[in-house]
Order: sequence, then structure tokens, then C-alpha cells
Amino acid sequence: MTYCVAMRLDAGLVFLSDSRTNAGVDHINTFRKMHVFEKPGERVLVLMTSGNLSISQSVVNTLREKLESSRGSNLHKVRNMFEAAKHVGDCLREVHARDAEALRKFGVDFASSLILGGQIKGEEQRVFNIYAAGNFIEATPETPYFQIGESKYGKPIIDRVIGARTSLDEAAKCALISMDSTIRSNLSVGLPLDLVIYENDTLKVGRHINITQDSAYYGQIRKQWGEQLRQGFAALPAPDWNAL
Amino acid sequence: MTYCVAMRLDAGLVFLSDSRTNAGVDHINTFRKMHVFEKPGERVLVLMTSGNLSISQSVVNTLREKLESSRGSNLHKVRNMFEAAKHVGDCLREVHARDAEALRKFGVDFASSLILGGQIKGEEQRVFNIYAAGNFIEATPETPYFQIGESKYGKPIIDRVIGARTSLDEAAKCALISMDSTIRSNLSVGLPLDLVIYENDTLKVGRHINITQDSAYYGQIRKQWGEQLRQGFAALPAPDWNAL
Repeated sequence: MTYCVAMRLDAGLVFLSDSRTNAGVDHINTFRKMHVFEKPGERVLVLMTSGNLSISQSVVNTLREKLESSRGSNLHKVRNMFEAAKHVGDCLREVHARDAEALRKFGVDFASSLILGGQIKGEEQRVFNIYAAGNFIEATPETPYFQIGESKYGKPIIDRVIGARTSLDEAAKCALISMDSTIRSNLSVGLPLDLVIYENDTLKVGRHINITQDSAYYGQIRKQWGEQLRQGFAALPAPDWNAL
Repeated sequence: MTYCVAMRLDAGLVFLSDSRTNAGVDHINTFRKMHVFEKPGERVLVLMTSGNLSISQSVVNTLREKLESSRGSNLHKVRNMFEAAKHVGDCLREVHARDAEALRKFGVDFASSLILGGQIKGEEQRVFNIYAAGNFIEATPETPYFQIGESKYGKPIIDRVIGARTSLDEAAKCALISMDSTIRSNLSVGLPLDLVIYENDTLKVGRHINITQDSAYYGQIRKQWGEQLRQGFAALPAPDWNAL
């Protein structure tokens, strides 16, 4: 399983992914699900993947191959983020054309959901959620985030905290709390985490941090958040049976 | 969709269910999902249902018909909760035998998940989760609660707060907070709520409360919990980029 979240804020973008993959509970591995395509001063693109790992890797390999080819489009050539999302969708469709029928014969769904976000010089930062069929939707000021994978446990805190005007630091903190809730409830989502923070109009990756068990800050907010929840819960009044 | 939760505590039992059913977002209705079978002084049994509403209603009707028949077993005759769970499982299998094949022809799964809890004189209070196949599992001191339906949004707070020794008031409060998180995130779970609180060894329903939009207490803890979460989140330290 996977949990990835991307937030599109006025101040920039926040991306967070876990790194656990599993094919049954006896086959758990660590693979990176976050891929950064950067041309400093001109463009930053971040792709996060969920679903069947062979599909995810094939898409990323296809994107990288196209980067090295002089022919056709690629993520360094596309003129804007909309074209970038179409390009990733096209690569996903190439993988679908090659693998979907063979997977189907083995009863395996063509399961893939991607998040692509970033900024290309000349337009503002944008974030897209790309589906298995290669179609996609874009984050808006009203819905400024996307999640892929095991999204439900970590959704309530995002809904309560994140808006377009949230600062990058607050958003990163919220993404980590959201990830913590998910990791606590779902064994198949796990450390280390990949965190990328992109500040609007810088056109380079500001911070790209790998968070492990040893991360002091992550450990601190995990613990403190648990205490806040218990204290906050204890502070709620006991049921008033006459007012229920 | 549905959300129901039952907690098995040393002090007794707490049951909470929503009442919304939907067949597509243009067909949303209110149906009770909680059914109480009581013989004061001898037994209290509470059944909560999720899944296909026609299956749920058929099971409840079958259980009630058997109560009125002098032949065969029924929920007023079974000697203990294990037999009660087997009896409910048998009724579910009767419904399966009649409906499953016809549903399958229309591409409809035989989806049903039930929670049965209560106490029968002579043994302690017990809670079971009964699956569509009529088999079941029982709550234990280590896993003192079951959820059915849309369970993920409301699970983290239960995991952090509920243990076998939690008081009935605290557990009812936690169930309501868990329900609030679910209602906020899933449009297809909705008010009114049914709350039943059973105090150990009383052998009668202590409180059976219908919670509506007008419930002062529910409104109060909803609001206060939202504030606690935002304040608790704000109190967490901002990321220390050197310690991540």
C-alpha cells in the first residue's frame, strides 16, 4: 500500500510520500514513490505514484527514456504543466497498451494513480491527479490537495487545517501528521518518508528530505500530537444525558 | 453507506449507528440500522447492520418472525451470546439461500456485515462481528470494539482512546467524536444517530437515545473537538529543518 499527499498552496507546493510496497504481508519492501524532474531556473516537476509497482516503475522509466531521446516530447520540453500532465498520461497509456491485457489474464487490475505537481517558468504552480486511464484532474483553490493510496485515515486533519493560504511550514507539518495517522492505522504504509517542499517561483527544489525512524522532529510531533489528541478529548465535557 | 461502532468495555457496552442509506447520491434515505431485542431482567441484545439494505431488513424480519414462532430457536430462547451469534448467522444464511443468486444475476454482491452485542443472564457481556457468510469473530479485551461500514475516518480516535477499562461515558463521547469525523468526510453517513448504552449486569437497556441536528451535547462536542484539533495542531512546533 501507499500513502502520498500533495498540497497546492499560494506559497508553493508540498509533497509527501511513504516508501512501503507490499505484495502480501510477507513481501514488504521499500521503494521510493517520489520522483523529481528538475531544470533549475526553468522547471521543477514532482511525480508520486501509487498502485501496481511494475506499472509505476514502467511509467517512470518511460518518462526517463523520453528525457534522453532527442525525438518527441518529454518533461523537459513540455511548455506548461497541462502539457506535462498529458505527457505523463500518454506514458501511462503506453504502459497500459503493453501490459494491461497480460495482467488481466492473471486477474490483475491495471491499478495506477499518480500525482504530478510543479511549476514551469511562465505560469504558476499546479498539481494534477492522473488516473489509470491517463485522464486527470487539477487541484484548485477550493480543493488544494490530492491524496493517492490509503487516503482516508489521514484526510480529516487535512480537511480541517489546509487552505490555499496555509504556509509551507504549516502544510508540511500537516502532511506529516496526516501521514502519522495513516501509518498508525495501516501496517502497509511505512517509513522512510520523502518530503519535498517547493517555494513558489523559485524554480528549484527548496527542500528534499528523507525522514527515517531517527528523525527528531517527526518523532517529536508524532508524540506531541498523540498527547494533544488525548488531552483535547479529555477536555470535552462528559455526555449530558438530558441534552442529547 | 453506513457507520456503526460497538465497544465492549468492562463497565458495559456502547453502540452507535448512523441512519443514512443511499442507492446513488440521488436516492438517500433514513433507515434505522440499530435493532434492540430485550427481555428486561434476562437479556439485552443489540444488532447493527451494514451493507445491502434489503439483506439487512430481511435478516431483521427473519429474526422477528422467529421470535413470534413457537418452533425452533430464536433470540429470546438462545442460552448465551455465542448461540445468539450463530442464530443471527443462520438467519443471514437463510437470506443468502433465497437472494444471493438472484442478486448475482443483476451484478449485485451479497454484501452484509453485522454487529451483535449484548448480555444474557449467566454470562458476561459480549460483542460479535458477523460476516456475510454467517461466520463471526468476537471482541476481546485487546480488541474491544468493532466497526462496520465506512470505518476508516473514525478509527484513529478510537485506537487512541478506547481500552477495556474506559468508562461508559468516555466511550460514548469517543463514539460520537468518531462518528463526527466520519460524517464530515463521507456525505453518505448522516444524522440522526442511534446511541445505546448498556451497563454491565443490569440486563436492560440503560439509555437509548436518538441524536438529531438539535442535540445540544452533540453540537457542543463537535464544535469543541474541531477547535481542540486546530489548537492542538497550531501548538505543534514548526518544522525544524535541521532535525528532520
